[in-house]
Amino acid sequence: MSFSLHEKEDTIVALATPQGVGAIAVIRLSGKDAIKITNRIFKGKDLEKQASHTIHFGTIRDGDKIIDEVLASVFVAPKSFTKENVVEISTHGSSYIVNQVIKLLVRHGARPAKPGEFTQRAFLHGQFDLAQAEAVADLIHSDSETSHQAAMNQMRGGFSSEIQKLRNELIHFASMIELELDFGEEDVEFANRNDLKVLVEKLLRAVELLISSFDLGNVIKNGVPTVIAGKPNAGKSTLLNALLNEEKAIVSEIAGTTRDFIEDEINIGGVIFRFIDTAGLRETTDIIEAIGVSRTQEKMKTASLILYLFDLTDTDMVEINRDINRLENQGVPFIKVANKIDKASPDFVRELKAKYPDTIFISAGQKDNLEVLKSRILELVNLDKFRTGNTIVTNIRHYDSLVKTRHSLLDVLEGLDRQITNDFLAMDIRRSLHYLGEITGEITTDDLLANIFSKFCIGK
Amino acid sequence: MSFSLHEKEDTIVALATPQGVGAIAVIRLSGKDAIKITNRIFKGKDLEKQASHTIHFGTIRDGDKIIDEVLASVFVAPKSFTKENVVEISTHGSSYIVNQVIKLLVRHGARPAKPGEFTQRAFLHGQFDLAQAEAVADLIHSDSETSHQAAMNQMRGGFSSEIQKLRNELIHFASMIELELDFGEEDVEFANRNDLKVLVEKLLRAVELLISSFDLGNVIKNGVPTVIAGKPNAGKSTLLNALLNEEKAIVSEIAGTTRDFIEDEINIGGVIFRFIDTAGLRETTDIIEAIGVSRTQEKMKTASLILYLFDLTDTDMVEINRDINRLENQGVPFIKVANKIDKASPDFVRELKAKYPDTIFISAGQKDNLEVLKSRILELVNLDKFRTGNTIVTNIRHYDSLVKTRHSLLDVLEGLDRQITNDFLAMDIRRSLHYLGEITGEITTDDLLANIFSKFCIGK
Repeated sequence: MSFSLHEKEDTIVALATPQGVGAIAVIRLSGKDAIKITNRIFKGKDLEKQASHTIHFGTIRDGDKIIDEVLASVFVAPKSFTKENVVEISTHGSSYIVNQVIKLLVRHGARPAKPGEFTQRAFLHGQFDLAQAEAVADLIHSDSETSHQAAMNQMRGGFSSEIQKLRNELIHFASMIELELDFGEEDVEFANRNDLKVLVEKLLRAVELLISSFDLGNVIKNGVPTVIAGKPNAGKSTLLNALLNEEKAIVSEIAGTTRDFIEDEINIGGVIFRFIDTAGLRETTDIIEAIGVSRTQEKMKTASLILYLFDLTDTDMVEINRDINRLENQGVPFIKVANKIDKASPDFVRELKAKYPDTIFISAGQKDNLEVLKSRILELVNLDKFRTGNTIVTNIRHYDSLVKTRHSLLDVLEGLDRQITNDFLAMDIRRSLHYLGEITGEITTDDLLANIFSKFCIGK
Repeated sequence: MSFSLHEKEDTIVALATPQGVGAIAVIRLSGKDAIKITNRIFKGKDLEKQASHTIHFGTIRDGDKIIDEVLASVFVAPKSFTKENVVEISTHGSSYIVNQVIKLLVRHGARPAKPGEFTQRAFLHGQFDLAQAEAVADLIHSDSETSHQAAMNQMRGGFSSEIQKLRNELIHFASMIELELDFGEEDVEFANRNDLKVLVEKLLRAVELLISSFDLGNVIKNGVPTVIAGKPNAGKSTLLNALLNEEKAIVSEIAGTTRDFIEDEINIGGVIFRFIDTAGLRETTDIIEAIGVSRTQEKMKTASLILYLFDLTDTDMVEINRDINRLENQGVPFIKVANKIDKASPDFVRELKAKYPDTIFISAGQKDNLEVLKSRILELVNLDKFRTGNTIVTNIRHYDSLVKTRHSLLDVLEGLDRQITNDFLAMDIRRSLHYLGEITGEITTDDLLANIFSKFCIGK
């Protein structure tokens, strides 16, 4: 999908609110003729004569037939989301009415919007850069405090300004080098090679910090892949249900705003934990899932966190030692969780505490000590970096560009060491600038834009 | 559910758009403190100082934390839907954000709205009468041109003004009679008994017309219950699919606005036809559904329309005569539909046309002549009454009140004939007025209101 110049000047229309029955629905138009086209079917005040950011009651009519009583909100360019003329028509929330109104607007000159086309226009008109535009989609799909905060920070330009700063410093040196090229034979040196080296090393460290933040960013956006490992009947399913039910109880406190629960995702302290193969956990009877079974080991390799759960009434120290030994060899962070504390022998508990002081003792059935377990889980995910306001890369496209930037910067460093000629050096620097510029959209292609915005929903 | 005085003064809040992912979501507040409460979490202009019907960009904040960038639309009482102060907050369409914002508003003094509470407040503040309020819900659920038009007419007061007119004429006579009662012994007659009789008879005719419109109104609102009757392999399932697919093709022409199809409902010319037991039709192999099977006869009794479908290549005149004879005894309107015209013997077709000239010849498989069938179907439903703008009763509560009104009016007439005393006459007239008043809400009880509005969705 790419846009011709003509398409970019069309007035586009789409439903901006979710499909389905609600009190109201909002239909959005954007483009030069947005107000004029709405005026053709709107009976009320003359919308073309109204100030920006005002709301007007009226009826939408198809000839004599009244389709609905509506509120029309008028935004006059450039004071709108897209920086074009925008009208938002608030109708009664019937899909029949929405269909009729959109059809009518199309008949009077609007065109159905493509996915992400409103946001794309906002980007093309400089409302925000590409990374910010992408954050709009992330924001809509955010489902936890952390993913929401990461998207909000990115949408408000936190990430972009960091990239921009790096890029500006590099641009300064690039222009010096290019200047030297202009002077050609004269062998002047505007850009001090040592200063350049110091700068590139500084940039490299910043880029590497961003690259390394992607692990965390990915976890924030997609959830922490987590495995509960343990023998059958250790209480894995009971623990999972206990955690899930607590969350449900918290979230459903406000009527009418509950959300769909994904059975395998649990929000702990604002972070989503995605439990792997919980379908298996939920029918423990037939499945042998002790540590050591190869299928479980496979899963554990893809996990970022393992809860090692054992039943205090049904496990001896030899088994526990062996399991912990194996888990340490896996290299994935794990938490020792001793279940059924309410039925355990005090002696065994004492022995365990002495040997493994970081064991957490719970009763999944009685919901005892779950809070302690949850705070340990959060500790292990280590969100401190995030909480202190450091920028986190959450988008795989940005990650790719950053990795390519790193390669180019390494090429620059190598070139400096090998004292390559200015024209090659300039090329490497330009390549670094290109990849950094792709992130915020200073450098774009139609394909890149089409690829990004086609993943948006229609109406955004 | 009934509301205490205190509850009526709360500021209420709810999501006004459907649940789910969309570009935007709209959260609505109504009440004395709607603007003040929003102001507490909104950073931007001071909303309390803004003119009605204006829109303001800003951020919603929980302390230092930014929850979202939003547009806040301000409506100052009484210039709003509820006639109270109203704010509509347009957020990014994430259920996480919606939950956070609503929680925050509740923490700052709003209360989650009950189902229909916004519309109930609009009614209590005289924005519209009860029949109009009920039409708002009908409008949201309307899914065809006719149900939409009926709801729109009712919402805009067409039905109410008709009821009001009848009521006002009766009130005039009631007051005359009451006046006579005041004069007691003096035997004056302010209200001419003949005039009263003429009026009551006129009212009765009007009420009976409305009562009889309910059949049509019910059909408009809930669909025409329709049966396709015919032998196995007559092509019932093929016909149903052909009609459904045509509709799908028409409706899905605009991207992003398609609706969920109910497999058994087909929109023909703006009217919903609800096909009974099409599950059976869809797996015809095992099911014997010839006319004459008792189960089919049961179904046909509940139908308002029967399509009698027979296969021209597999049915002889004796069968057809017998089936038509049976159908005529059922008393339900039916259409003779001869299928597989593309494979039929011309002689047989000629013979049939001579004997039953109103037979419609189609090929369900080839989709031949379906348009003719559809217009015949529409003819039979007879929407002329509706199309000429006559008022149609679609609400069973109104129907009940009208039936009770008729009883009371008949009592008045009988009383006049039997020359009963004024006090009894006045009682019968007051009863008529009561039932008419229930429709538009001049007469209400808390229970009645609670019953009506609890059926609304939250946010409306």
